Amino acid sequence: MTAHGARAVQRCRILVEPPFSETAGSLFRFWLGTSYRHTLAQVQIWMEEAGMDVRTDAVGNLVGRYEGTDPKAPVLMIGSHLDTVRNGGAFDGNLGVMLGIELVAALKDQGTRLPFPIEVIGFGDEEGSRFPVPMICSRTMTGEISAVPQGVTDSQGMTVADAMLAYGLDPSQLKNATRRPEDILAFIEPHIEQGPCLEAADEPLGVVTAIAAQTRQRVMVKGQADHAGTTPMTLRRDALAGAAEMMLAVEKRGLNGAGNLVATVGQIEVTPNTSNVIPGDVWFSLDMRAGSNEVRDALAEGIRSDIRDIANRRGLDVSFTAPQQLEAAECSPGIIERFASAVETVTGRSAPRLLSGAGHDSMAMAGFCPMGMLFIRSPGGLSHHPDETVLVEDVELAHRTLLACVKEFQS
Amino acid sequence: MTAHGARAVQRCRILVEPPFSETAGSLFRFWLGTSYRHTLAQVQIWMEEAGMDVRTDAVGNLVGRYEGTDPKAPVLMIGSHLDTVRNGGAFDGNLGVMLGIELVAALKDQGTRLPFPIEVIGFGDEEGSRFPVPMICSRTMTGEISAVPQGVTDSQGMTVADAMLAYGLDPSQLKNATRRPEDILAFIEPHIEQGPCLEAADEPLGVVTAIAAQTRQRVMVKGQADHAGTTPMTLRRDALAGAAEMMLAVEKRGLNGAGNLVATVGQIEVTPNTSNVIPGDVWFSLDMRAGSNEVRDALAEGIRSDIRDIANRRGLDVSFTAPQQLEAAECSPGIIERFASAVETVTGRSAPRLLSGAGHDSMAMAGFCPMGMLFIRSPGGLSHHPDETVLVEDVELAHRTLLACVKEFQS
Repeated sequence: MTAHGARAVQRCRILVEPPFSETAGSLFRFWLGTSYRHTLAQVQIWMEEAGMDVRTDAVGNLVGRYEGTDPKAPVLMIGSHLDTVRNGGAFDGNLGVMLGIELVAALKDQGTRLPFPIEVIGFGDEEGSRFPVPMICSRTMTGEISAVPQGVTDSQGMTVADAMLAYGLDPSQLKNATRRPEDILAFIEPHIEQGPCLEAADEPLGVVTAIAAQTRQRVMVKGQADHAGTTPMTLRRDALAGAAEMMLAVEKRGLNGAGNLVATVGQIEVTPNTSNVIPGDVWFSLDMRAGSNEVRDALAEGIRSDIRDIANRRGLDVSFTAPQQLEAAECSPGIIERFASAVETVTGRSAPRLLSGAGHDSMAMAGFCPMGMLFIRSPGGLSHHPDETVLVEDVELAHRTLLACVKEFQS
Repeated sequence: MTAHGARAVQRCRILVEPPFSETAGSLFRFWLGTSYRHTLAQVQIWMEEAGMDVRTDAVGNLVGRYEGTDPKAPVLMIGSHLDTVRNGGAFDGNLGVMLGIELVAALKDQGTRLPFPIEVIGFGDEEGSRFPVPMICSRTMTGEISAVPQGVTDSQGMTVADAMLAYGLDPSQLKNATRRPEDILAFIEPHIEQGPCLEAADEPLGVVTAIAAQTRQRVMVKGQADHAGTTPMTLRRDALAGAAEMMLAVEKRGLNGAGNLVATVGQIEVTPNTSNVIPGDVWFSLDMRAGSNEVRDALAEGIRSDIRDIANRRGLDVSFTAPQQLEAAECSPGIIERFASAVETVTGRSAPRLLSGAGHDSMAMAGFCPMGMLFIRSPGGLSHHPDETVLVEDVELAHRTLLACVKEFQS
């Protein structure tokens, strides 16, 4: 008998090194990059071994299909994303795809076909690691994105359309990746928790009730570049000193907020970024999340207000990019109950229910079809980091839970 | 009659665009780059037109020599640097070289030979724009640097030795650029003020009394990279939020210090620098200057102490690179008096005497030979910026001052 959980873990660990990573010694894989192409080729082999027919769709998602007894029945989708952040971990996203493959492999081993087809999905772009637009691929699948995003480029100055062409995808055919909701029974996403809650509760698995609302935007701060040696402190308009004060205000709003509210500055670029020149221009990212849209909006407005006040006081100009908002996404009550019941069957314990602070492709899928997520414990709460890991026994429990759960779905 | 000041200004403006700049639309020229090679070729032509014999020395300095009546007499050197910061201005450094050329051109036009040779020097690297080591070229001329700096690379990962080889210089012959102090009569450097003092005093020219002491070093802050959505605010070890607090402490030490004390963070790099990841590693630059070594040292120690306290409180690891120190450099009293007298002769006004907050090649020359600097007013106090400028009439006055002054030197 195959140890499905162990194999899923092993395969995630295979995918961390070149050619499956852009960088040696740390994992970085972005949508439509060279390492992405190699990864899809490898995962396709594993999908085919598990009995699936495999294709890459018009936006670069990998789709493996395992037919049911009724090929016309709406499909149960399971999966997650195959892209990673820079210097990322082995399990974020990838583990969900590998667990989808193991689910099908187990069904095939048992000679079981369900009344409905199963599709294992490897989404191409969840993190926004290449373009400053997250979830291009799942949002194309739902039809929320119906044309190639314009006006954004990657760090090499390449547009989305050029990246698609370079990969061999036709940007004008993007819409062919969009599915019809009536063809989808549900989407379920197994994923590492990426936070400390399950570990703190000493539980291997958790059932997600909803995904937090997010706002991301950039803050542009404009001061005056000048010589660091000759400009008296009192006459400076230092964009970086101003940004520093703003970053502390962001942190303070996060600390003073309610429970699962967070605010982060993860990215900053300074011009000219030279040690003996007072910075003239700075931009930095804002990432703000909360359990409801309302709390998230109040947080974002408070932060923007603090930033404007600091800029005014320092004689700096400040502007904001349009916020990219992801609304809070409720998981399907029916799937929550099926997951909860399956976890109890498999582990003999009642599964914790929790809010996901991280965004997921499930967020994009939420308005499109019934959606649910199963969380797997993250040791140390660590994610987006090379030390991100899982316990093999937890992954085996997740596999058994998924197997128990999907048999309860009805077409 | 040639308008020497106007021509010096015009030539500086010619040198701001490609091929004399690495970047179009803004000036950036670093030591031994492509634009540096083009610049030396053009400046050599101007030097030769002015009657000089020209060579590039073993470290890439451009040296134009105008013989005196006694070719064995110690040489009077005049000049400044030809490299620039990124997005720099047309006059920083370059104007001093052009004024040296105009000085010789005027002597040639008058058919005058002084008792001593004059050498116009275009130093290759003052800013440290390519390697994190400033004034490689002037410090090689004085013998302070006697071998190629090891363990530093440019942004492309190239070592100093490789950059020299690529340019056609032999790193093993670096020492050939070192001069003997007994061969040098003095070094004088005309330079834009790069600060607001002369403009505030409504004066075209100023005589420098000394150059401020500097310390530059980098601060490395290590926290824990983690997911921006799932890590509660209270459990974070955010290296960028910590760095923000440290940068404000640096600014505060600068603001609370005495008159011409300054402290600047001009450069910062964040890892992984992704909007949805809590920054795990940050380094930033410190640039600290004061009128005396003692005040500068107290400033630097205060800043390092603040930074350690902040790191401790936040559970961050912090370390510092070895400080690069430039000691305060006194100008030669004799040259100060000659400049003051010449300014008074030319302008009919008594010249302000001031401290240079900026570092200059003169700083490296100070312990080696008598050294002096003449400052030219900087409109708006602006420097290291594309809008950096000068008034043509000020430059003409500087030219006449230099011409009056050098005739007073005695071999």
